[in-house]
Amino acid sequence: MAPPRLYLDWNATSPLHPAAREAVVSALALFGNPNSVHGEGRAVRAAIEGARRQIAALSAAEPANVIFTSGATEAANMVLTPDFRMGRMPLAIDHLYYSAIEHPAVREGGRFSAEKTTEIPVTSAGVVDLAALERLLAGHDRAAGLPMVAIMLVNNETGIVQPVREAAKIVQTYGGVLVVDAVQAAGRLKLDINELGADFLIVSSHKLGGPKGAGALVSRGETLMPRPLIRGGGQEKGHRSGTENSAAIIGFGASAAAALAEFDERNSRFERLRDRLEAGMRRAAPGLLIYGADGPRVSNTSFFTLPGLKAETGQIAFDLEGVALSAGSACSSGKVGESHVLVAMGRDPKMGALRISLGFATTEDEIDRAVAAFAKIAGRCRPAGEAA
Amino acid sequence: MAPPRLYLDWNATSPLHPAAREAVVSALALFGNPNSVHGEGRAVRAAIEGARRQIAALSAAEPANVIFTSGATEAANMVLTPDFRMGRMPLAIDHLYYSAIEHPAVREGGRFSAEKTTEIPVTSAGVVDLAALERLLAGHDRAAGLPMVAIMLVNNETGIVQPVREAAKIVQTYGGVLVVDAVQAAGRLKLDINELGADFLIVSSHKLGGPKGAGALVSRGETLMPRPLIRGGGQEKGHRSGTENSAAIIGFGASAAAALAEFDERNSRFERLRDRLEAGMRRAAPGLLIYGADGPRVSNTSFFTLPGLKAETGQIAFDLEGVALSAGSACSSGKVGESHVLVAMGRDPKMGALRISLGFATTEDEIDRAVAAFAKIAGRCRPAGEAA
Repeated sequence: MAPPRLYLDWNATSPLHPAAREAVVSALALFGNPNSVHGEGRAVRAAIEGARRQIAALSAAEPANVIFTSGATEAANMVLTPDFRMGRMPLAIDHLYYSAIEHPAVREGGRFSAEKTTEIPVTSAGVVDLAALERLLAGHDRAAGLPMVAIMLVNNETGIVQPVREAAKIVQTYGGVLVVDAVQAAGRLKLDINELGADFLIVSSHKLGGPKGAGALVSRGETLMPRPLIRGGGQEKGHRSGTENSAAIIGFGASAAAALAEFDERNSRFERLRDRLEAGMRRAAPGLLIYGADGPRVSNTSFFTLPGLKAETGQIAFDLEGVALSAGSACSSGKVGESHVLVAMGRDPKMGALRISLGFATTEDEIDRAVAAFAKIAGRCRPAGEAA
Repeated sequence: MAPPRLYLDWNATSPLHPAAREAVVSALALFGNPNSVHGEGRAVRAAIEGARRQIAALSAAEPANVIFTSGATEAANMVLTPDFRMGRMPLAIDHLYYSAIEHPAVREGGRFSAEKTTEIPVTSAGVVDLAALERLLAGHDRAAGLPMVAIMLVNNETGIVQPVREAAKIVQTYGGVLVVDAVQAAGRLKLDINELGADFLIVSSHKLGGPKGAGALVSRGETLMPRPLIRGGGQEKGHRSGTENSAAIIGFGASAAAALAEFDERNSRFERLRDRLEAGMRRAAPGLLIYGADGPRVSNTSFFTLPGLKAETGQIAFDLEGVALSAGSACSSGKVGESHVLVAMGRDPKMGALRISLGFATTEDEIDRAVAAFAKIAGRCRPAGEAA
């Protein structure tokens, strides 16, 4: 009999946390339209506002500054626009600077023309180059509009924590707007929008143990806001129209509350399990290259290249062994593309890299099974020239 | 003991159909990312493609031409843009003509400037004025770009069916692009995108008995397409990025399949129940004004004004009697605004109108309770000067 499948691809998407599942299933019975004034409508409205407080707590923000969207990609598309408002006054943003390791939602989602977009390089250690950021902003012409800077707090492929606090000080010096993709950071680092110095945070439900279909744009204040991307009935105080996805929003809130309640337990367990995983893999393949192991990483992610094993081949080999992991990030086309993160770090992307990411339900036994699968696969693919 | 609540506001949002509920709850366990290549990802992908076939069947379209969105509002914002493509060639749309009774998602969601937007009037019977449409398109300057026309198939407030087939012939004569909001038509009229002559249909899950958080833009072909509104990972063949809201999409598909399977039973029951409702209300208040009663309406909707009763007051009175209905459409702010539909029909919007809308679970007993509540409320608010 085949052993049960082993899911180690939590950065791609998380199974529903039991608390989120319970919240979603209960919310499915709350059938009113939250914008209706009758009792059925008001019941849903109250539950959505509860979820708004839970998401605010996740990032130490004000509930009034949480705008629910259909997900992080929509939130990125919404905020990465030249078309801002300061209160009721139009405010022009002239240029978007984003790090070379941002998610495609940031790389492709901005409404800036190509000549109004510049990549901020990262070091070979996978960390945003702050000196380069400072040089770019020093050269920015403020006459045409303010600069916008987008830097993720945790990279989705490597798990490497980016120096957002330091970047925020530079962005503030040059009067810019800082957008922080906190999708992979939420639940893995303590978030505080003010302490980070971010003007906007982007968070996602389904990376946190909530259902797919909800995300949020969290702002530091209510005054500086992008022109809405989706307009119509004027929901979310006019910032995002469309009937709220109430069940997903309520599940998102529950997943955030669970992540906060279990924060210390999860992260100390992840750290222990990830260390066990990496030690086991290194024993089986001493040539293993693990990215970001010497610097700050979130505790649930391991990103590595085994010399002699193409990531694409490795992913299929693991899938056949019953282990779900990923080669870089989940790619939309279902094909495995070259990792832009490896390229940005100056690595040869041809061999690619594999990502193992842990989640709230990951156990020590699963880690040991993953190490065994790794050892089996590594044993089959020693690089040419190495003694068997 | 208070009698159970009575929900007669199905045009605002529908409780989950049991088949959709079952599909959503099963789908919550399918936790993979549909863009991952491992087994968990492929299982979700297969279920999403099944839902795509179910939505295609709802409108007699090709599955390849169904793009899932977070809802109808997003679909409207996506398609109502000057920025189109014909294959890989840019194609300019220069002007948006929409009927005066369109939903706010169409009225506010288009990315055309105010001077590039014109309302098509409706007759006092609440029907789009085709002669006016023809005059407008005859005056359109095609040198700057093609005209786009947006006409809903069924109005959400009145339930009145619009002459879309006839409008399509006019739009085709002038080489325009026709967008049809079919949100309130789906499940209540047989839809066939080719027979209607629409270039695009917009449909919504939660008006059909599916969960909130899913909708679709259905196109007649694959060549003429808007530039994407939400960009990033390139999901939905590049037309709509962001991890698919798989549970909502799968529930949406199930709700569409149920609506087709139960089509004849539902609609003949609605017709019988709506006639019973309107006869009962007329007996209780002979001065009752029912909009659209003499022309083609969908079978589940009754929109009426009782002289002497402001709609806003009426809605609260019904809510206190345990009956959920709406004054016009569900208004985003929770306040009851003036109905732009009544204004477009040349009616005085001050008194407003009430909407009762039926759904798959509505029973004869509920209709009789609604009539009793109506009679009670009508008895309290005879217009001044009428004998008690």
